[in-house]
Amino acid sequence: MIIDSHAHVVLPAESYRYMANLVSSRANPVDRAKVPDSAIRAAAEGLLRMMDSVGTDMQFLSPRPYAQLHSIKPARVTELWTRHVNDVIHRQCEMFPDRFRGVAGLPQYRDSSPENTLPELERCIEQLGFVGCLLNPDPTEGDCAPPPGLGDPFWHPLYRKLVEYDVPALIHSAGSCQPREPYTLKFINEESIAVISLLGSSVFEEFPTLKLIVPHGGGAIPYQMGRFRAWTTRLGGTETFDQKVRKLHYDTCNYAQEALELLFKVVGPDRVLFGTEKPGTGNARNPETGRDFDDLKPVIESIDFLSEQDRRNIFECNCRRLYPRAFRNDA
Amino acid sequence: MIIDSHAHVVLPAESYRYMANLVSSRANPVDRAKVPDSAIRAAAEGLLRMMDSVGTDMQFLSPRPYAQLHSIKPARVTELWTRHVNDVIHRQCEMFPDRFRGVAGLPQYRDSSPENTLPELERCIEQLGFVGCLLNPDPTEGDCAPPPGLGDPFWHPLYRKLVEYDVPALIHSAGSCQPREPYTLKFINEESIAVISLLGSSVFEEFPTLKLIVPHGGGAIPYQMGRFRAWTTRLGGTETFDQKVRKLHYDTCNYAQEALELLFKVVGPDRVLFGTEKPGTGNARNPETGRDFDDLKPVIESIDFLSEQDRRNIFECNCRRLYPRAFRNDA
Repeated sequence: MIIDSHAHVVLPAESYRYMANLVSSRANPVDRAKVPDSAIRAAAEGLLRMMDSVGTDMQFLSPRPYAQLHSIKPARVTELWTRHVNDVIHRQCEMFPDRFRGVAGLPQYRDSSPENTLPELERCIEQLGFVGCLLNPDPTEGDCAPPPGLGDPFWHPLYRKLVEYDVPALIHSAGSCQPREPYTLKFINEESIAVISLLGSSVFEEFPTLKLIVPHGGGAIPYQMGRFRAWTTRLGGTETFDQKVRKLHYDTCNYAQEALELLFKVVGPDRVLFGTEKPGTGNARNPETGRDFDDLKPVIESIDFLSEQDRRNIFECNCRRLYPRAFRNDA
Repeated sequence: MIIDSHAHVVLPAESYRYMANLVSSRANPVDRAKVPDSAIRAAAEGLLRMMDSVGTDMQFLSPRPYAQLHSIKPARVTELWTRHVNDVIHRQCEMFPDRFRGVAGLPQYRDSSPENTLPELERCIEQLGFVGCLLNPDPTEGDCAPPPGLGDPFWHPLYRKLVEYDVPALIHSAGSCQPREPYTLKFINEESIAVISLLGSSVFEEFPTLKLIVPHGGGAIPYQMGRFRAWTTRLGGTETFDQKVRKLHYDTCNYAQEALELLFKVVGPDRVLFGTEKPGTGNARNPETGRDFDDLKPVIESIDFLSEQDRRNIFECNCRRLYPRAFRNDA
């Protein structure tokens, strides 16, 4: 089974109309979202055709990260928009229960405590049957001083809830307010910041069963390992940096074979989930291969140092292990 | 000849005393720096012993980046400290003219235009015989909104001067005011931001002979190439991202062999300068090799797909080409 653990919902045009109105009116007054089942279904069917074209059996759908509006004022916009997108994801999951699972967006808002996101997380997990959530390390979207790093107790209320539900969080920033740093690069930089903050903290002593996934191959960290190996050695301590990085999980949403090879070597294939974000940044034809950049299954199949079991772990088993709620109705 | 193009001055204790006083008094009143020749010489001799231990013939010395104080208020502190450090570098270069070259620190200050740095650049190049300079893309050190990206005309006054002098700039951030992002990681993230900003701009059309070096193997970019290949393809245009990255230069200050191999493959050995920053972040014994992490000469010598000429380019020729002022008194 091929599970794409990192994918984002394809929204119907009616959703964007709702967003446009929410942002323009600043949610005052609040319009009602009106999205007919036919539009929800058509958007999902377009996505299913894409999945079929590359052999993906199932996608885990979360909100499109850069369009999460985490720093748009006032907070009510973020809150309503997040709820709307989660509802669309839920409706698509209900329509195609063999092909989709829901990963919740959280209504994170600027430097507010993540406590404000717990009701929506609860709703998504308990009522909508979602299996995980996104976690944005910088909901200010670069507009002002970011909240403390993910290693800080600031985030513990959310971690406590994730552990209680036994659901993982996919660490993924949203937009970027700084012209010098497009959102697609901010994703990468925020991942590096998240890894270093988490691995320098006592989070995994306090929450030993917390499951966090760093997408896009872990930002810069697998490439910059030497730097942090040396840094960790100089600071002393009992664990090497290579041991530390295995406390986190990663995904394959990195569109170059040499980079994926480095990732597998550095963190181990038991720590990496298949993810392509198709259709997303990689949705363009690679002239060298004639396939889309985000068609990663053949790339992973061609890496010869991976065993058959390694590949099964990457494509399916690691994901099943991390997301127990995704398959609990299985025989 | 082995030229370490990325190295930082080792300062005598008297310099730190001067810095402590400058920061504490906020340069009001201004103390005078008193550093005897014997202290300058002793610091340099310690560094020479380290260079000899790893077979480095020459180091290009710049200020220690994280200690540049670019965001300490008021600007006068930065200005005096930069001038002091450049003077120490100059004195060490004068004492050991076969072993050191000077790379200037610039008194960049928060979001001020780089115009304010031109007099010190001029002094360093014309009077002190320096061969290049550092360039910090975020002199706010993360304390507030950063200046525009390096692709923005904001930076043109500095680029104009660099082209006029035919000297390269080494893109290197300084400190970090955000607890979640230690300076050593901010270096990496700022490099990624710099590359994407520059390659998305028309800087190299306006300044075709501008020479910019991205240290530490180019931040995250060589590892995240697939992402930016796809991004560039989707945006259209005539150049591929692989062509664009070769407008910049890079250095080997990345302490993992697999990462260096990826760098050489992606940007080409003709675009990479030997640099180790020894002693810096990599100044710790690697238990796997028994050598220091920053002892990179044997690492590069062991990469078997590099030809003898590739190695000579990396160790020496690329550097001579980029820094013509470093060797203009040669026979």
